[in-house]
Amino acid sequence: MEKPSLPSGTRDFGPGMMAKRRYIIDTIVNIFRLYGFSQIETPALENLKTLQGKYGDEGDQLLFKVLNNGDFLSKVNETLLAEKNSKALTPQIADRGLRYDLTVPLARFVVMNRNDINFPFKRFQVQPVWRADRPQKGRYREFWQCDADVVGSKGIVNEIELIQIYLDVFAQLNLPVVLKINHRKFFDSLEKTLGGKTQLNRFMQLIDKNDKIGFEGVAEELKKEGLESGLNIWHLIDDLNKKDNTAKLNTLQTSELIDHETLTKGMADIQFVLDSHAQNKNVVWDLTLARGLSYYTGWVFEVVPQKSEQFPDFSIGSIGGGGRYDNLTEIFGLKDVSGVGISFGLDRIYDTLEQLQLFPENIVQNAQVIVCPVEESQLLTSVNLAQQLRKQGISATTYPEASKLKKQLDYANSMNIEFAVLIGSRETETQTATVKNLASGEQREIKFDQLAHKINSWNQ
Amino acid sequence: MEKPSLPSGTRDFGPGMMAKRRYIIDTIVNIFRLYGFSQIETPALENLKTLQGKYGDEGDQLLFKVLNNGDFLSKVNETLLAEKNSKALTPQIADRGLRYDLTVPLARFVVMNRNDINFPFKRFQVQPVWRADRPQKGRYREFWQCDADVVGSKGIVNEIELIQIYLDVFAQLNLPVVLKINHRKFFDSLEKTLGGKTQLNRFMQLIDKNDKIGFEGVAEELKKEGLESGLNIWHLIDDLNKKDNTAKLNTLQTSELIDHETLTKGMADIQFVLDSHAQNKNVVWDLTLARGLSYYTGWVFEVVPQKSEQFPDFSIGSIGGGGRYDNLTEIFGLKDVSGVGISFGLDRIYDTLEQLQLFPENIVQNAQVIVCPVEESQLLTSVNLAQQLRKQGISATTYPEASKLKKQLDYANSMNIEFAVLIGSRETETQTATVKNLASGEQREIKFDQLAHKINSWNQ
Repeated sequence: MEKPSLPSGTRDFGPGMMAKRRYIIDTIVNIFRLYGFSQIETPALENLKTLQGKYGDEGDQLLFKVLNNGDFLSKVNETLLAEKNSKALTPQIADRGLRYDLTVPLARFVVMNRNDINFPFKRFQVQPVWRADRPQKGRYREFWQCDADVVGSKGIVNEIELIQIYLDVFAQLNLPVVLKINHRKFFDSLEKTLGGKTQLNRFMQLIDKNDKIGFEGVAEELKKEGLESGLNIWHLIDDLNKKDNTAKLNTLQTSELIDHETLTKGMADIQFVLDSHAQNKNVVWDLTLARGLSYYTGWVFEVVPQKSEQFPDFSIGSIGGGGRYDNLTEIFGLKDVSGVGISFGLDRIYDTLEQLQLFPENIVQNAQVIVCPVEESQLLTSVNLAQQLRKQGISATTYPEASKLKKQLDYANSMNIEFAVLIGSRETETQTATVKNLASGEQREIKFDQLAHKINSWNQ
Repeated sequence: MEKPSLPSGTRDFGPGMMAKRRYIIDTIVNIFRLYGFSQIETPALENLKTLQGKYGDEGDQLLFKVLNNGDFLSKVNETLLAEKNSKALTPQIADRGLRYDLTVPLARFVVMNRNDINFPFKRFQVQPVWRADRPQKGRYREFWQCDADVVGSKGIVNEIELIQIYLDVFAQLNLPVVLKINHRKFFDSLEKTLGGKTQLNRFMQLIDKNDKIGFEGVAEELKKEGLESGLNIWHLIDDLNKKDNTAKLNTLQTSELIDHETLTKGMADIQFVLDSHAQNKNVVWDLTLARGLSYYTGWVFEVVPQKSEQFPDFSIGSIGGGGRYDNLTEIFGLKDVSGVGISFGLDRIYDTLEQLQLFPENIVQNAQVIVCPVEESQLLTSVNLAQQLRKQGISATTYPEASKLKKQLDYANSMNIEFAVLIGSRETETQTATVKNLASGEQREIKFDQLAHKINSWNQ
C-alpha cells in the first residue's frame, strides 16, 4: 500500500504546534474583543462568480476551483472539449471555488446582510484561505488569516484604534515591532510632478522594491525608465525618511514637488494619526511604503519585526498589513461603503516567535495529572479518582490499561504530565494514593478525598 | 450587477449565531481538555488517494474534488474526453479533494507521524467537513464536526471516559439526553441463529429502521424477507429493551438464540461499562442500536435529546455518535492500531438548544462600554478614554465619528452595549464624563480617572 501523504503546500498541526498557534490566535482574538469587534465566519466554498475578477488576472489563476458534482461533462461545449481548452472550459465544469482571502467574503457578507447589520460594523474573522501558489519556505497553499475590519465608517478614529490593536497584540506577544504607515494622499500629491497616473503607478511599483534593491537600485531603475522627476522625489523621500514624523509633514507642506491642494485633502487624517501616536517611536511614517496603495485609498499599514542585536538580519518581511479601502462593497453593487482593516500573518508570526524563542514555556498543556492503575482490578477506582479530580477543575487522564508501571510513567514523562497518582489494591484498601511529582521525583501518600486539594497546594 | 449569493448548502455565521456556536464549541473543548485530550488540525485539502475508497461508493460520489491548476486538460485521455466520460476523467483532472470527515485524516496523521506520537494518543479536532449531499433542513454541504478519539489503546477505560465526556458536556449545556450504547459482540452472537454473515448484515440494516417504521414495521420486513429466526430475535430484543441494563445481560446469557461463546468474548467489556454507569438511568443499552456497527468493532454510542413534556416529539435524531474501530489505520497499511472515539453534531446541538431556549442570556458579547464623542474636537480624548478602560480589562468601543448623540445611542442600544460614556468639551474641561446605563437609563457623572472602577461597581 502506498504511503499516505499531504498535498503540496498543506500542513498538519500536531498537538505541540497547535498549542502554539492557539496561543497566538487567542492573544489576537482577546484583543479584538476588547476593542468591541465581533466574530463572523464565512464558508470555505464560495461561488466562483463571487471570487473571480476580484484579485486581478494572477489571482484568478491562483483560485482553487471545485469540480461540479455528478456528470459534469454532459452539458459542456464540445468544441472546447476537442480543443482541450482548459481555461475556457473551467467555468463550465466548476461553479465553486475556495476562499482566497477574508476581504471579498466580508464584502459579500455585508451586501447580503446589509439590512441586519448595525453600522459601523466591527467584525473579526480567523479562518484559512487557499491559493494555488508555488509553495516555498513560509508560503503555503492553505494558510490562515486573522482580520479585523470596520465597515461603514469613514472616521479616522478607526485607523487609530486599529493601530493600537497592532501595538497591543505585539506587546502582549513580547515581540518588538515597527509599525510602518503611509497615506494614499501623499502619493496622489505627486501625480502632477510625475506627469500623470501611469507614471505615478510605475513610480509606486519601483519604490516598493526598496526593501529588496535599496535606494541606489531604485534610483537606477527610475533613471532607466526616464522618470527624472521621480528621481527628485526619490531623493526627497530618502531625506525625509531620516526625520521624525512631524518634520516629514512640515517639509512636505513646503516642498515644490508636492501638489498641496491634494495633500491638504489628506492632511486632517495625517495630522490626527501622527498626533495620536506622537509618543510612540515604533509607529513610523514610511514614505517608501507603497504596498497595496494601488488598492487602498487612504492609510496603509505594515508591521515588521524590529531589528535588534539579538535579531540583526531578520528577512521574514511583513507580519501584518492593512489599510482603508473606500467602496469595499462596490464590487457587489453597493456603493459608498468604506472599510478599513488590519490583518495578522499567523504563519510568519509563528515563525518569528519560534526563531526568537518567545513562546512561553509549558505552552503545550496536556493533562496535569495521570491516574495509573497498577492492577487490572483497580481500573474502575482509577477512573473514578480521575473523575473526582476533574470535578474540582484539575485536568486528568487515566492510563487506560493496567500496564507495567514503568510503561505508564514513561508515557507520563513524555507527555510532560506533572503528577502521577498510583493506584493498586493496597491504595484502594487504605483509600490513600501514592502521588509522584514527575519533575522533582518527590512522592507523597495522600488520602483519596484530599487529592485535589493536596495537588493544588503541593508547593505550599 | 448580479446579487451575490452563497453556494447551496453553505452558510455565513453572523455575530449572533457565531457567539452561540462558540458557546457550544468552548463547552465541548474545555471538557476534552479536562480529560487530557490535545488538539490537532489537518488540512481541508487532502489527496483524493487518501479519501477515495474509504467511505463506500456513495461516499466517493459525495466527495468534493478540486480541479488541478494550470492546463489540466493537456495530458488527459482523448477517448474519455470525446466520450464525455465524467467519472473516468475525474482522476485525470483532480488530484485533491475536501476533507469528508475527521476520522480518515486522523488515521492518515497517525500513520505519517507514528514515530513522534506518544500512544495512547488522545486527540480532539474541531473542523469543518464537506459532502456534496443534497442539502435539506439540518443537512449542509459544509458542516462542522467535533471529535475526540483515543488511538492505540484497547482498554475499556477509554470507552468509560468517552461516555463520561458525553454526560459532562450535555450536563453543562443543560440539555437532558439519552446515551444509547450497544456492542458489536451482541450482534456477532446472533450470526449462527440467523444463518450467516449476510443474514446478520441484512438483519442489522432492517432493525436500524426501528426509529422510522417502529416494531411492527421491522417485523413486517423481516417476515417479507423470510428471516424467521430474525423475527424471534426481534421479539426478544423488544422484550429486553423494556428491562434495565443488568436484566438484559442476565437474559441474554440464558437465551437459546444467542451464541454464548461469542457473547462471552465481549462480556468483560459489557459488564464493565454497565457496572460503571449502573447509577445513570440515562445510559441505556439499546439492543436495537445497529448504527455504524458494520463499521465499528466493539461498543457503539449514540446520543439523542431526551423526550420530555416540554419537548414531546423531538425528531432531530442523534446529536452525537461514535464507537470503537479496530484497525483504524489499516487502510493506510499500519495494522493493529485500535481507535475509539466520539463525535458531537454541532449543527444539531445548536438547533436543539435554540428550540429548547437553552442558550444563556446575553451570549452575544459586544463591547461593554461605548465612548461617544459628541463634538469633533473630542475624538482624541474619547479614543484615549476607551484605551484607558481596556487597560483595566473593560471591553470598549469608540463611536468613530462625532455624529448626533441620538444616532450614537441608537447604535449602542442595537448592539446591546451596557454603558455609554458621553464626551463633549464640557466633560473634558471638568475631566468628568456623563455615563449612561443603557438598560436602566440611569445617568451618573464620573471623574475620568474613576471610570473603570465606577463602571465595575455600578450596582454596588
